[in-house]
Amino acid sequence: MLNQKRIRDYGVKIGRMDPGSNNAITDVEGVTVGHVTLCDGKMQTGVTAILPHQGNIFKEKLIASSHVINGFGKTMGTIQMAELGTLETPIILTNTLNVGAAADALIDYTLERNPEIGRTTGTVNPIVGECNDMFLNDIREKFVKAGHVLQALENASTEFKEGAVGAGTGMLCYSMKGGIGSASRIMEMKHGKYTMGVLVLTNFGILEDLRINGKAVGQELADVMERSYKGKDEGSIMIIVATDLPVSERQLNRIIKRSVTGLSRTGSIITTGSGEVVIGFSTATRIPHEKPEHCLSLPMIHEEDIDLAFRAVGEATEEAILNSLVTAESVVGRDGNVRPALKDLIEEFTLSLIQ
Amino acid sequence: MLNQKRIRDYGVKIGRMDPGSNNAITDVEGVTVGHVTLCDGKMQTGVTAILPHQGNIFKEKLIASSHVINGFGKTMGTIQMAELGTLETPIILTNTLNVGAAADALIDYTLERNPEIGRTTGTVNPIVGECNDMFLNDIREKFVKAGHVLQALENASTEFKEGAVGAGTGMLCYSMKGGIGSASRIMEMKHGKYTMGVLVLTNFGILEDLRINGKAVGQELADVMERSYKGKDEGSIMIIVATDLPVSERQLNRIIKRSVTGLSRTGSIITTGSGEVVIGFSTATRIPHEKPEHCLSLPMIHEEDIDLAFRAVGEATEEAILNSLVTAESVVGRDGNVRPALKDLIEEFTLSLIQ
Amino acid sequence: MLNQKRIRDYGVKIGRMDPGSNNAITDVEGVTVGHVTLCDGKMQTGVTAILPHQGNIFKEKLIASSHVINGFGKTMGTIQMAELGTLETPIILTNTLNVGAAADALIDYTLERNPEIGRTTGTVNPIVGECNDMFLNDIREKFVKAGHVLQALENASTEFKEGAVGAGTGMLCYSMKGGIGSASRIMEMKHGKYTMGVLVLTNFGILEDLRINGKAVGQELADVMERSYKGKDEGSIMIIVATDLPVSERQLNRIIKRSVTGLSRTGSIITTGSGEVVIGFSTATRIPHEKPEHCLSLPMIHEEDIDLAFRAVGEATEEAILNSLVTAESVVGRDGNVRPALKDLIEEFTLSLIQ
Amino acid sequence: MLNQKRIRDYGVKIGRMDPGSNNAITDVEGVTVGHVTLCDGKMQTGVTAILPHQGNIFKEKLIASSHVINGFGKTMGTIQMAELGTLETPIILTNTLNVGAAADALIDYTLERNPEIGRTTGTVNPIVGECNDMFLNDIREKFVKAGHVLQALENASTEFKEGAVGAGTGMLCYSMKGGIGSASRIMEMKHGKYTMGVLVLTNFGILEDLRINGKAVGQELADVMERSYKGKDEGSIMIIVATDLPVSERQLNRIIKRSVTGLSRTGSIITTGSGEVVIGFSTATRIPHEKPEHCLSLPMIHEEDIDLAFRAVGEATEEAILNSLVTAESVVGRDGNVRPALKDLIEEFTLSLIQ
Repeated sequence: MLNQKRIRDYGVKIGRMDPGSNNAITDVEGVTVGHVTLCDGKMQTGVTAILPHQGNIFKEKLIASSHVINGFGKTMGTIQMAELGTLETPIILTNTLNVGAAADALIDYTLERNPEIGRTTGTVNPIVGECNDMFLNDIREKFVKAGHVLQALENASTEFKEGAVGAGTGMLCYSMKGGIGSASRIMEMKHGKYTMGVLVLTNFGILEDLRINGKAVGQELADVMERSYKGKDEGSIMIIVATDLPVSERQLNRIIKRSVTGLSRTGSIITTGSGEVVIGFSTATRIPHEKPEHCLSLPMIHEEDIDLAFRAVGEATEEAILNSLVTAESVVGRDGNVRPALKDLIEEFTLSLIQ
Repeated sequence: MLNQKRIRDYGVKIGRMDPGSNNAITDVEGVTVGHVTLCDGKMQTGVTAILPHQGNIFKEKLIASSHVINGFGKTMGTIQMAELGTLETPIILTNTLNVGAAADALIDYTLERNPEIGRTTGTVNPIVGECNDMFLNDIREKFVKAGHVLQALENASTEFKEGAVGAGTGMLCYSMKGGIGSASRIMEMKHGKYTMGVLVLTNFGILEDLRINGKAVGQELADVMERSYKGKDEGSIMIIVATDLPVSERQLNRIIKRSVTGLSRTGSIITTGSGEVVIGFSTATRIPHEKPEHCLSLPMIHEEDIDLAFRAVGEATEEAILNSLVTAESVVGRDGNVRPALKDLIEEFTLSLIQ
Repeated sequence: MLNQKRIRDYGVKIGRMDPGSNNAITDVEGVTVGHVTLCDGKMQTGVTAILPHQGNIFKEKLIASSHVINGFGKTMGTIQMAELGTLETPIILTNTLNVGAAADALIDYTLERNPEIGRTTGTVNPIVGECNDMFLNDIREKFVKAGHVLQALENASTEFKEGAVGAGTGMLCYSMKGGIGSASRIMEMKHGKYTMGVLVLTNFGILEDLRINGKAVGQELADVMERSYKGKDEGSIMIIVATDLPVSERQLNRIIKRSVTGLSRTGSIITTGSGEVVIGFSTATRIPHEKPEHCLSLPMIHEEDIDLAFRAVGEATEEAILNSLVTAESVVGRDGNVRPALKDLIEEFTLSLIQ
Repeated sequence: MLNQKRIRDYGVKIGRMDPGSNNAITDVEGVTVGHVTLCDGKMQTGVTAILPHQGNIFKEKLIASSHVINGFGKTMGTIQMAELGTLETPIILTNTLNVGAAADALIDYTLERNPEIGRTTGTVNPIVGECNDMFLNDIREKFVKAGHVLQALENASTEFKEGAVGAGTGMLCYSMKGGIGSASRIMEMKHGKYTMGVLVLTNFGILEDLRINGKAVGQELADVMERSYKGKDEGSIMIIVATDLPVSERQLNRIIKRSVTGLSRTGSIITTGSGEVVIGFSTATRIPHEKPEHCLSLPMIHEEDIDLAFRAVGEATEEAILNSLVTAESVVGRDGNVRPALKDLIEEFTLSLIQ
């Protein structure tokens, strides 16, 4: 996408399933992604918005589920998602101390589009995820304002940048620059051809743990650089999973839980220090906000079909993380703090990513 | 049912919804219940079997869900039920130390009916619930054998006894004789008329806490009898919920969780001492064991329809508990241990159950 | 407290345990409560703040736990509480569409008191609960601003008003005016005397369901008034539980789950329509933010002691709900919407609350 | 242990932490493991028993927790473990259809040692885990009897065999022979030196997915063998985690959840087809069955100490799985079914396990 060199362009092929045409979450029809990037000196943060479909998501909700891999995080909206099994707003990602502001903006966005909220119908459940970008960003300043959130929503498109953009602007991953990454997989079943898309916001890991397709690239880099980054591993990642596979909430939850296999294969030990949260949705069924007179009918796969989705989400998560790393540019932030970009290290140390 | 005087026959009407024709779990079409009662001196125990439908439940599974109100219990089979959302065996209730034996018998029952298990398909997930009847029953003797389980399954019928029968033979409730009770409610919705059925195995509570339709009957009884039963409240109840309402696993879980409102209204404080577990299933959809070529289609209500089911399950649970109390006969068990029957106390103290 | 006529003043005594001196959550030493009430025409909302102790709660965290009775709600901060078992901010209650703004203000409050956040230590997990006051309050206007939150925190005291105040200003309960209520219970154990305190924000129920100490007061009122309030039951309540009992996170979770017994006994059927969330904390142990060199030592009761806490929390919740009802004044709000106060109906219809 | 060639003996070193002296779960003081192996023609099954300490575990319980990675399984006893946070029996592993019989035997074992059960105290919660060995074992015959369980308990020792022994006799892993494996890690903290031990019963995976320390050994093998094993991946593993680290139930749960990182790094995609369950316990504190007059005091690490335990459990799980594979002998079972042993393939194809 958008002319960035991604992990496949380095000859690294994760897993055995084929990606979609963009190899991105936006391969799932209707899904778009938008960024606002705030980068100026000690301001290194931003917003990433994921639109699950292009209609009125409050009125036509999607089957959704969340899963907490590690709960040292402040993701908003998962209680209602668990109870009702639906998503009714776009998903906003930003820095940890701006979740309140982002939720507030997302409420405004929804109120504007739905004048009946607070009048003839109830309220809205905003979904906001976050990672902590305090190393590069002066997070205490809470740079993200309502306008940035609305702008990110407006910027949403099927093509989007990865790396140090949007919510990923100030994030670190495996002691290097992290941020936004994405990937997808095609699932061929007897009853149809479906897509699994993943977008990650990466902010976890220490250099020595990084593995690329199994290869201990992080340890090699640490050895050749004769250097380590001793900072605590804060262990944070947001994983957004989109699919057009017809699934129930329970099935979707099973699928998104498997993202941890991809995460683990990049080397993560899932440290205590921050939130690792997965949010997933299926575009296969729209649940109307207003009750119809008849019953709903929910198409869903038989459980024996689900292994392909398990494999797809693991592969796409692993590749999305690697894409977030390899597309990121180095950033100098707060107090001159800086972390290298993997792509620069590859060049500097003529590092091979393949075995 | 079967000429027992139930709580309604004392003029007590719980809630405002109408019961089904039997006012029992078997009002849900296809559901049958069978008992084996073992009562002889220090042997005061038994088995109660609930058949969710009259076909091959392993091959045609039902949407199912479980909920733990208090987990000091040994109910088997809930892990798989949570993961897959289905029930694939009848439900067996018995005493705590016989869960292993009952599970073993239920496995045999299923193996016999499904020769492909362990050959061309996998294994089976037996569902067994329990309460501790050690006060009246010499539970260490583990009187329940495989044959009793198979017999209870064979005895299953739409009409069944309540009180000190089957798994309820040796159970106590609110310091009096407890056991099996049941009730049902009719739910009229725009798209159909549905039934909510509840069966309980009661073994919890102290006399002073008992309330009947809000009236502090237990305290009145304790006062007039000038007596209390100081034994610890072991707090155990199994609640089986059956419905023909079309629901997803998530919706069913929401519904069965509401059984706690009925339980609480009889006076329970949900003590630490034993298991309080709810198992629910919907007969509206059969999930085939074998994968078809196409997707499944799951009919489900819109969430705005669900409050009626919430009310129904609370009312039916409250009434089922009261039925278990008021139908039970006094039992003399192990070491001459005995607890009175509520119906005898009503007569002895000319107690009114209504305000 | 503060000269309001509470449910006990009507001769209604809930349960058999004794309340603390204020019969309020603030009987737990160190706990204070503050309100900001915004009531002017269509603005009928506010903020209630609960301070768990009077020190720096971020640096000296408390053992904490949350429990979702019904998850149609937007409570923030429970993911981290589940993972780490601690509370590190005051608890803020407000209306549903102001959770973002309230979280943002609570972040600022904590940043100001802890300059190391975002520099040498990580971020903060704000706890914000809500109910939907749209019937009386023009909730779309989002009247609550950061200053109101900070003011409520500043107003915190051991004595506080109940009823239509703070976050309770615009709330309804059993079709009448609801809001803030509180109660407490004393727990005498061999190793000490402890307090269980509960504060509720009530916004649920329909008139016909209300029971006061078992008596069907709501139905009686509906009959005598020849009137019902057909509006949907939105079913929302926030329950805050404080105790000085030494407990582990797991034990605390077991305790706060039992609040549902009190809720049920007031007549709730726990409808689908909004959030019913419990947040509990124990003041018995302070968990230091900074890691000491040695292990921590957590005092905790033996599980056999816990039934008294189960009874206490049920009784205190039931009484707190009734206090919220009986102390509330009638409020005329948005579009002239109005709901009666229970205390006015008691007088008008010379209603007896006792049997 | 016991002269078997383990994965380290092939030059493969997993992770960067040091193992304990046996590199096994029994490095945690007090823990012993015993097997009974039933191998004769179509009988290829058995029992593995893990004793958590050498005293009376019912009277002196241990802090414990379980975690379900995938719930298509029949593990017994986890409901009570979640509620009470303790382990009160040894842990028995066996085949899926023998869980009832094994639970029954474990109940007998505990009754015999505790005559007060069912008299002056309540019942017992047996912990039984399982995998499905139907490919090699005629599982319908339910070969495991009570005596085998008691024998396995009696056989328990600090040294024990790995591979095709005990419950592992008939299991498959990555399309080859699997079974029992173990490993351990030493955790040095400021306040002491602790051990993390893991024992696995492996029965999951397809050959092509196997990775050894990141290397795609499974794919290499499939290529060179020009053969695949198309059977469904049933995806089952039992993971038992023992540690002497002082932790609360919540902390222990966080730790055992991280076993999935090790599992994933061997190549698992966590398929739908069977149970993947983790059971963990800490020997640091004994919780008395009888209530003392005073409060308990629970030593626990500060949360900032926990990352070392996360790394340890991931490394030990990964290595334990590889040990189960590389120690297993090929087995010919039911209907002549057979799967190769990894160690034989290594030799036959002169396969290198290191990069």
